[in-house]
Amino acid sequence: MTAFLNNVPGSLHVERLIELAIDEDLGHGDITTEALGMEESSGRAVIVAKEPMVVAGLDIVRRVYEKFDSGVFFRPLIQDGHRVQPEARVAEIKANMGALLSGERIALNFLQRLSGIATNVRRYAGLIPDLRVRLTDTRKTTPGWRVLEKYAVRAGGAFNHRMGLFDGVLIKDNHIAACGGITQAVEKIRARVSHLIKIEVETESLDQVKDALNAGADVIMLDNMSREDIEQAVKIIDGRALVEVSGGIDLEGLRDLCSAGVDIISAGALTHAARSVDLGMYIEPAT
Amino acid sequence: MTAFLNNVPGSLHVERLIELAIDEDLGHGDITTEALGMEESSGRAVIVAKEPMVVAGLDIVRRVYEKFDSGVFFRPLIQDGHRVQPEARVAEIKANMGALLSGERIALNFLQRLSGIATNVRRYAGLIPDLRVRLTDTRKTTPGWRVLEKYAVRAGGAFNHRMGLFDGVLIKDNHIAACGGITQAVEKIRARVSHLIKIEVETESLDQVKDALNAGADVIMLDNMSREDIEQAVKIIDGRALVEVSGGIDLEGLRDLCSAGVDIISAGALTHAARSVDLGMYIEPAT
Amino acid sequence: MTAFLNNVPGSLHVERLIELAIDEDLGHGDITTEALGMEESSGRAVIVAKEPMVVAGLDIVRRVYEKFDSGVFFRPLIQDGHRVQPEARVAEIKANMGALLSGERIALNFLQRLSGIATNVRRYAGLIPDLRVRLTDTRKTTPGWRVLEKYAVRAGGAFNHRMGLFDGVLIKDNHIAACGGITQAVEKIRARVSHLIKIEVETESLDQVKDALNAGADVIMLDNMSREDIEQAVKIIDGRALVEVSGGIDLEGLRDLCSAGVDIISAGALTHAARSVDLGMYIEPAT
Amino acid sequence: MTAFLNNVPGSLHVERLIELAIDEDLGHGDITTEALGMEESSGRAVIVAKEPMVVAGLDIVRRVYEKFDSGVFFRPLIQDGHRVQPEARVAEIKANMGALLSGERIALNFLQRLSGIATNVRRYAGLIPDLRVRLTDTRKTTPGWRVLEKYAVRAGGAFNHRMGLFDGVLIKDNHIAACGGITQAVEKIRARVSHLIKIEVETESLDQVKDALNAGADVIMLDNMSREDIEQAVKIIDGRALVEVSGGIDLEGLRDLCSAGVDIISAGALTHAARSVDLGMYIEPAT
Amino acid sequence: MTAFLNNVPGSLHVERLIELAIDEDLGHGDITTEALGMEESSGRAVIVAKEPMVVAGLDIVRRVYEKFDSGVFFRPLIQDGHRVQPEARVAEIKANMGALLSGERIALNFLQRLSGIATNVRRYAGLIPDLRVRLTDTRKTTPGWRVLEKYAVRAGGAFNHRMGLFDGVLIKDNHIAACGGITQAVEKIRARVSHLIKIEVETESLDQVKDALNAGADVIMLDNMSREDIEQAVKIIDGRALVEVSGGIDLEGLRDLCSAGVDIISAGALTHAARSVDLGMYIEPAT
Amino acid sequence: MTAFLNNVPGSLHVERLIELAIDEDLGHGDITTEALGMEESSGRAVIVAKEPMVVAGLDIVRRVYEKFDSGVFFRPLIQDGHRVQPEARVAEIKANMGALLSGERIALNFLQRLSGIATNVRRYAGLIPDLRVRLTDTRKTTPGWRVLEKYAVRAGGAFNHRMGLFDGVLIKDNHIAACGGITQAVEKIRARVSHLIKIEVETESLDQVKDALNAGADVIMLDNMSREDIEQAVKIIDGRALVEVSGGIDLEGLRDLCSAGVDIISAGALTHAARSVDLGMYIEPAT
Repeated sequence: MTAFLNNVPGSLHVERLIELAIDEDLGHGDITTEALGMEESSGRAVIVAKEPMVVAGLDIVRRVYEKFDSGVFFRPLIQDGHRVQPEARVAEIKANMGALLSGERIALNFLQRLSGIATNVRRYAGLIPDLRVRLTDTRKTTPGWRVLEKYAVRAGGAFNHRMGLFDGVLIKDNHIAACGGITQAVEKIRARVSHLIKIEVETESLDQVKDALNAGADVIMLDNMSREDIEQAVKIIDGRALVEVSGGIDLEGLRDLCSAGVDIISAGALTHAARSVDLGMYIEPAT
Repeated sequence: MTAFLNNVPGSLHVERLIELAIDEDLGHGDITTEALGMEESSGRAVIVAKEPMVVAGLDIVRRVYEKFDSGVFFRPLIQDGHRVQPEARVAEIKANMGALLSGERIALNFLQRLSGIATNVRRYAGLIPDLRVRLTDTRKTTPGWRVLEKYAVRAGGAFNHRMGLFDGVLIKDNHIAACGGITQAVEKIRARVSHLIKIEVETESLDQVKDALNAGADVIMLDNMSREDIEQAVKIIDGRALVEVSGGIDLEGLRDLCSAGVDIISAGALTHAARSVDLGMYIEPAT
Repeated sequence: MTAFLNNVPGSLHVERLIELAIDEDLGHGDITTEALGMEESSGRAVIVAKEPMVVAGLDIVRRVYEKFDSGVFFRPLIQDGHRVQPEARVAEIKANMGALLSGERIALNFLQRLSGIATNVRRYAGLIPDLRVRLTDTRKTTPGWRVLEKYAVRAGGAFNHRMGLFDGVLIKDNHIAACGGITQAVEKIRARVSHLIKIEVETESLDQVKDALNAGADVIMLDNMSREDIEQAVKIIDGRALVEVSGGIDLEGLRDLCSAGVDIISAGALTHAARSVDLGMYIEPAT
Repeated sequence: MTAFLNNVPGSLHVERLIELAIDEDLGHGDITTEALGMEESSGRAVIVAKEPMVVAGLDIVRRVYEKFDSGVFFRPLIQDGHRVQPEARVAEIKANMGALLSGERIALNFLQRLSGIATNVRRYAGLIPDLRVRLTDTRKTTPGWRVLEKYAVRAGGAFNHRMGLFDGVLIKDNHIAACGGITQAVEKIRARVSHLIKIEVETESLDQVKDALNAGADVIMLDNMSREDIEQAVKIIDGRALVEVSGGIDLEGLRDLCSAGVDIISAGALTHAARSVDLGMYIEPAT
Repeated sequence: MTAFLNNVPGSLHVERLIELAIDEDLGHGDITTEALGMEESSGRAVIVAKEPMVVAGLDIVRRVYEKFDSGVFFRPLIQDGHRVQPEARVAEIKANMGALLSGERIALNFLQRLSGIATNVRRYAGLIPDLRVRLTDTRKTTPGWRVLEKYAVRAGGAFNHRMGLFDGVLIKDNHIAACGGITQAVEKIRARVSHLIKIEVETESLDQVKDALNAGADVIMLDNMSREDIEQAVKIIDGRALVEVSGGIDLEGLRDLCSAGVDIISAGALTHAARSVDLGMYIEPAT
Repeated sequence: MTAFLNNVPGSLHVERLIELAIDEDLGHGDITTEALGMEESSGRAVIVAKEPMVVAGLDIVRRVYEKFDSGVFFRPLIQDGHRVQPEARVAEIKANMGALLSGERIALNFLQRLSGIATNVRRYAGLIPDLRVRLTDTRKTTPGWRVLEKYAVRAGGAFNHRMGLFDGVLIKDNHIAACGGITQAVEKIRARVSHLIKIEVETESLDQVKDALNAGADVIMLDNMSREDIEQAVKIIDGRALVEVSGGIDLEGLRDLCSAGVDIISAGALTHAARSVDLGMYIEPAT
């Protein structure tokens, strides 16, 4: 795996999600903490893993806390993408006690889900023997979380498929039907999109594979095909387009698919089947 | 269970989440669908369950599609909170083909998660013999999704704990330490909040239970206590406050807890341990 | 009165109101100040009371000025909730001259209204002999100002009723009619809301008081009842629910009501009948 | 008085204020109304004056309700700017019961304040014998409400001063000091602003009046001057600039000032000293 | 040229730009039109070309007017991308007179710039003999207008380069220097981006061209190279990557470049050197 | 020319435009720069003019870069409104390399357009012999850019007409027709607007000039009149109103018009006919 960079993208979407998360939890104020006037006193918190996990999203913790206390001190004790054991301390935070208490749940809610995805992804990615086959996510992500979950997928060791409907083309049956054939569809779309965008065609039979190849598709997706058909498709395509397999990928089938000669395996389960992992935060007054 | 009402709250938070979800997926446009000029032609879609599930969130599908086509026709074929079997058709949509194709993934991503939560909740709620004990969620929800996930919990048959830090008081150790004792903390908070807000105190020992009771807490949370301590606490409290048990609740322990005489059992697993369920959408040109 | 904390809630609503206030006054710029290039020179301002008042909202002045000059120095010279006499200096501000001049009117407009409310509230609150009866505001606040005005009410020495429709339940005639009876209404709402939210029922007769009590209301509001009916209602309820009196409360009637044995007196006049108090700002170049 | 037009300006500021007002009151939902499932049933409401008043802002009621029910029917029964007696019905609304109940308080809170201002203004405006003297408001308005309160001033029969710092120039002492003299200040500002914007100079002595006149001011404000000085200033100016009097205007002094030959009298009391008037809403199920 | 579709992308960016445009022009209202009460009367408008042009952006006119009058009727009389002569009527609008007058300038300001770009592009595109060479725009667009200007480029007959920094990779000198070589840069980026995104490398010498080719670049940009170097580079690359020429493209050089065997010619002048064309709107009361 | 102040107005509109510009270019991230982890290393950039120009908008560069790196150091090397020659260094920036690279195009896109307008304006303004005639812009600006382009016009040495429909009155034919005559129109509008707003009437014949004068217009616009009619109108008006000439102003006709005795010449070409000028940014790692 290429060395992983510890920088969550700073997109406006992430900013908006953080603001939404704080707004839905705080509303007109944390009435418990606020009434006790804890803004003045300083505190210190440590985030601790409570089960084995691959950590992802530590920088979000910093960003959440900066909304509560612009003078927060945040120090990651581990890098995103690394595996930790129970009781491992993953980050340290210093801020006023009010901020620490009011932001605790929000910060953990982000971290437990992103680390949960990275942990799930690592189980799959660990089965891929080398870099020849690229395991990718899909668009089956939690609405509002696309950028973050795709980041967690990379932290877990897999790759991203397109970010959304705007940075990659995937032509499906309905698209083809709407314009009278795969060749016409590819031609129209090529005139619309940048030459830096590749065009992928989804196929369900070997005949469709041939059509896609003739139409000049850059990538051909084999959707829910049998192992035999996949091998046959790889032979037909013969390197003239990238071959992606999708549909019903589980841990058992994954290694087997890798040997079929495909280039990309995409699995929605990387994101939508992940469960949150358990992390805790220990807060105490600064001494 | 009280008859469940099929209306997802129309809060601004939900609106903002839907907009964020569309924005992250569409960006500057669905370059595939847009290039093919499918806006003109009419289409029809049916959403179908692909595994047994309790459905929740159908109205979000309508709201998502109204952003794509203000003239969309949406008809739920089942009511939120009902259990369906594989192949059950849960909703029908009529809109222009471009809208149907561009919105498909977003709509399903919402529905699969909310129905997943409702399905998970139903497994727990089904174990609670009657209404005497109230099973509730916690604040361990997906950031940005609080209102929706709490709705799905109700659809699944359980109850909500407070929505956020603003509509209920939960006093923890750090709060108490900050102001010199539980009685002082309760007094300060009562002066800050409306008389319609109850005050809950989190306790970890029977001594703390007695303190909370003396301070006039409306609700006392027993955090991670043993079965013996729970029974003892119930006796001490003796109806003078509501008793909530929290921490490490699983399916096995749930029925047992119900017999301990507690009023409320809160379980983060209702939301954070749910997995998405599988739903598909079948789209075809309108005839 | 419990010691009052000098912290205006930092909610998003307050932020949005401040931005709106600046936007409506500044538009594309303070064309007078801007043309004179006063951004460079430093200035100093003092805010002075011009009539007797209870001060509230000083922190808003700081927040307004931080939008004009992120390096502003703000020092309150008095604490919110304190009474001052004419000529009292209530705050000092140091910023660039352009910021001081452009923000002057906005800052004073906030302060004169919030202090006006606190001053008005203090006249009522001073008549309540002790803490047994709780004087509260209502939802009759200036649209957009809910959080701020409720803060000023607390600064003035009274208490808050619910913040809005989301953090407390108040069942009225129309609600009861809509679902066939007060018992059904209470039951449906209990299933919808957190156990930390109390349920209040508005009554206009002693029969309704009895119905509300039987339905398990936590709080019973006596709406515009005569003194005799109020006393009778207090006897009927007999501590099994909190008793709130509302409607037509003026300064004269207030002390009398306190002796009737009620728990809560809510008065819209605390906010909607307050008038702004007079404050001035003296600006001079820094020496 | 020129015939008054019944159209509240549709500016973005008003839109944002309405959204803020709804958001602060509704939060994640009207938990009372929502739980009772009243969205389906139709209702009808009438707004009734409960004291004598000049009505202003009826269109805001319509706009508030359109946020709750896009199919609302709204009919004003009186025109803004007209005086009504107690029990007068001022508007009729048809919408679903949920919308009527959830929006009631917000709509009335808007209407009671705007009508309160119009009523207050009418008392002053009724004292101005003819159109030769123009009674205007100031920038002492409720933050966030500028456009609406200035509308209510017009509805009450007075005139508007500049809307904000962007559509009129008012040069004060600090401005003059900052650039070395009134002539320099006027010159710099003329180069910055459109030729459609007049320049007003605030003066506190007859010497300053002369300076302002020589500098070419379009309007000269006499700030807190004595009756004698005002008459003297009017003579000095002699029609070469408009004369505005400001400061400490009350009902008694107003008629007297009109005879002093000034062109404009501006009074902050028109807006900041107004109190809300009393209006009620009667809601019933549609038959 | 592929048949051009008349649908401006409906992205959120366009929506925000339209709102900004209206807000900056209307502010708190069109004080001229508003005072005259023209909202009630109906009107009709025709947009007419006043010089030869290729029309682009008609749908924006509709969207602008929908903000002023939700019941507007809009009918394009020509399709985007078509050339018209002076006096040609390009669109008809029916709305209330107030909307027509207040929105006139905003609508025309959009249309004159987008049509100006399309007209400018057509002059270049008309020189490209066939589809083998793809003439594209760059990121030198008016800030805030990216989606619209790229649409106008397509309407004019040319193609789009990447939309922004997120949907295509262009590696420059500084990027290469930052990570120690072109091969390392390409490898790191491939691991970060989807397999549907192509990677382009900017080169300034034939040595760099060879490096980029070896590193596996999908597209190689020849930046400001001589005609001789371009031909040499085309030979070296020999179809193993797409060849893009950029820098200093004018009308004279364009046809010559086409014969050099390159695949893509990108020219910032398509957008940044375009001037607005002249269009007028004729408004009259509806009969 | 009055000394020009180097401060771009800080209005919310400019803020929103900058955010839109960044959002449309960055989307979910600069995938090239981000993958290379360049955030850590420091860099330095210099902006250089590549043709003769009048610089305008340098402060926007600072504001753009502050969004990428809050610790950016920005130093203008020239003042807005000054003319520079090719190779002149106009600003220096120090920030992290990632910020410098990701923000380069956006910053230059702003600067090249605003400097282009200032340069274009200077060619016209240089022909106006003295200050007696005021050359102004119009509302023919790029949607979303009004405040910025009007700033660039001032930087170029000309003046601004009204900012929008809210801060000046311009009565046209349709307005007059709608209310039965020019006198009625002026009267109604005077009652609506502040006494600091002047009223301008657009005329197309000498008869209309007389009507406008009689109605008390402050400014009379002569729209597309012949040189003879302009001179005649100036005589008729004779100093009782300001005279503005508009329509078809080019460089040749400008000096001639100045001698006709008019007060204001407004020309849309100042903004809409400007083309961007060429500027480059040189970025290098900080040593």
